Amino acid sequence: MPETYTLVLLRHGNSDWNQKNLFTGWVDVRLSELGVTEAKRAGELLADSGITPDVLYTSVLSRAIQTANLALETADRMWIPVKRSWRLNERHYGALQGKDKAQTLAEYGPEQFQTWRRSFDVPPPPIDDDNEWSQADDPRYVGIDGELPRTECLKDVIDRMLPYWESDITVDLAAGKTVLVTAHGNSLRALVKHLDDISDDEIAELNIPTGIPLVYELDADFRPVAPARYLDPEAAAAGAAAVAAQGKK
Amino acid sequence: MPETYTLVLLRHGNSDWNQKNLFTGWVDVRLSELGVTEAKRAGELLADSGITPDVLYTSVLSRAIQTANLALETADRMWIPVKRSWRLNERHYGALQGKDKAQTLAEYGPEQFQTWRRSFDVPPPPIDDDNEWSQADDPRYVGIDGELPRTECLKDVIDRMLPYWESDITVDLAAGKTVLVTAHGNSLRALVKHLDDISDDEIAELNIPTGIPLVYELDADFRPVAPARYLDPEAAAAGAAAVAAQGKK
Repeated sequence: MPETYTLVLLRHGNSDWNQKNLFTGWVDVRLSELGVTEAKRAGELLADSGITPDVLYTSVLSRAIQTANLALETADRMWIPVKRSWRLNERHYGALQGKDKAQTLAEYGPEQFQTWRRSFDVPPPPIDDDNEWSQADDPRYVGIDGELPRTECLKDVIDRMLPYWESDITVDLAAGKTVLVTAHGNSLRALVKHLDDISDDEIAELNIPTGIPLVYELDADFRPVAPARYLDPEAAAAGAAAVAAQGKK
Repeated sequence: MPETYTLVLLRHGNSDWNQKNLFTGWVDVRLSELGVTEAKRAGELLADSGITPDVLYTSVLSRAIQTANLALETADRMWIPVKRSWRLNERHYGALQGKDKAQTLAEYGPEQFQTWRRSFDVPPPPIDDDNEWSQADDPRYVGIDGELPRTECLKDVIDRMLPYWESDITVDLAAGKTVLVTAHGNSLRALVKHLDDISDDEIAELNIPTGIPLVYELDADFRPVAPARYLDPEAAAAGAAAVAAQGKK
C-alpha cells in the first residue's frame, strides 16, 4: 500500500459579522460565541478521529487564528509549529466590505449580487484606501505593499494562494507531516478547486461548511487518492446548505 | 540617540498545578481560571503601553502558549509570527514532577527542599522513563531524543536556553523586531541572569512574577541600556514576593 499524505482543511466558525450578515473579506472580525463553540467541536472531531496535526497553517485573520487555537487546545496539540500567511486570507471583498448583504441584494438585484458572490473572474469594485474597512494601513500587511489587493474574485484568490501551497504547504506534506490548514470559505474553495480539479463553472456550486474538518489523503503528486471526507458528514451537508442560502434572508 | 531593541518577557499565569501546590516542570498542565485572567491582563498592559510585539516566542508547554494566545488576542496582535521551542520550557523538575511541594518540604526538610528549588547547579534526582509524569513518550519531543532531559538545575536550563537565544531570538531583535517571549519562571530567570549579568549566587534570590510583561531595551550587543521595567511595577513587586513564599504553606 502506498504511503499517503494527510491534509486537513478547516473553515473558521461563525463570526460577529456573519451574524450581522455583513460582507467581511479582509476585515478582521472575531468569532461569535457560536464560532467559538464550532471551533472547539472541530477540535473534538479531530481528537476523536485520531488525526494528529503536526503543523498548522493559518491566514493572518483573527477568526481563523482563534479557530485554530481553540481546536488545537481542545485536541491537545497546541504545541505544534504554526505558520501564518496573508495568502490564506479570505477573498478581499473590495468596496463591499462592511456592507449589509441583504441590503446589497436589494440595492443591486439578484444577478449582480450573485455575480459578486460567486463569479469566478469578476471582482467587486475596489475599495478606496481611505475607506474605513480598507487594509491599506494595517501593520500586518507591511512588506507586501505591492501585492496588497483592493478587491478579489475567486480567480485572484487562487493566483495568490497556490504559490504558497506549492512553496510551503506541500513541502511539509512531502516531509510526511499531517498538515492542518485553518482558513476561510474562499481560500479553502480555491484549494479544493485545485485539489479536486473542479472547473471554473462548477466551483460556483461548491460550499464549504464552517467548523468541520475536511480530510484529504494525497498521493506523491499531492492528488487525492479518494474523495475527501468530512469528519461529521451529516453536519457538513447541513452546513453547506446553510452557506448556500446566505444573503437570502 | 542610538537605536535600541525591545524585548518583552512574560511568565505564564497561575496553572492548575500551581493551585494544587505540585511541582510541575515539563508536565503539560493548563492555566487555571486565575491564569487566564492574568494572561488577558498582560495583553491589556501591552496594549496600554503601546508596545506592539512583531514576533512571538513560546515554549512548547500549553500554559505558556495559552498565555501568549490570550495576551495577543487581548492586545489585537494574534496575527504575528510564532516560533516555539522546547529550549524555552520550564526547568525539568526530575523525580519531583507531580509531587506536592509542602509534602516534599516536610519529608526532606527545608535545606534539601531549598537546594532543589534554588540551587544553581544541583538538580533533583532524575525521573524514570516509566514514571507517569515523564516526557519520554511525549510526541512533541520526537527528534530531540538525545537531548531530552530527565532532570535539570538552573545551570542546565541556561545551557539549553542560551543557544536558542543566540541562534534565533537575537536574530529577530537585530532585524529591529519587538520580540515577545512567553515562557516560565526558570527559563526566564535563566535569560534575565544572562541579560543582567547576575552571579550564580545572586540568581537564587530573583523571582519573576506571573502575568506582568517585563520590558528590556537592549543595545546592539543585546545588553540592557537601562534596568528592565515591569509594565505594572506594584503588581510585579507583590507577585515576586508571592513566588518567594511558595512551598511555605
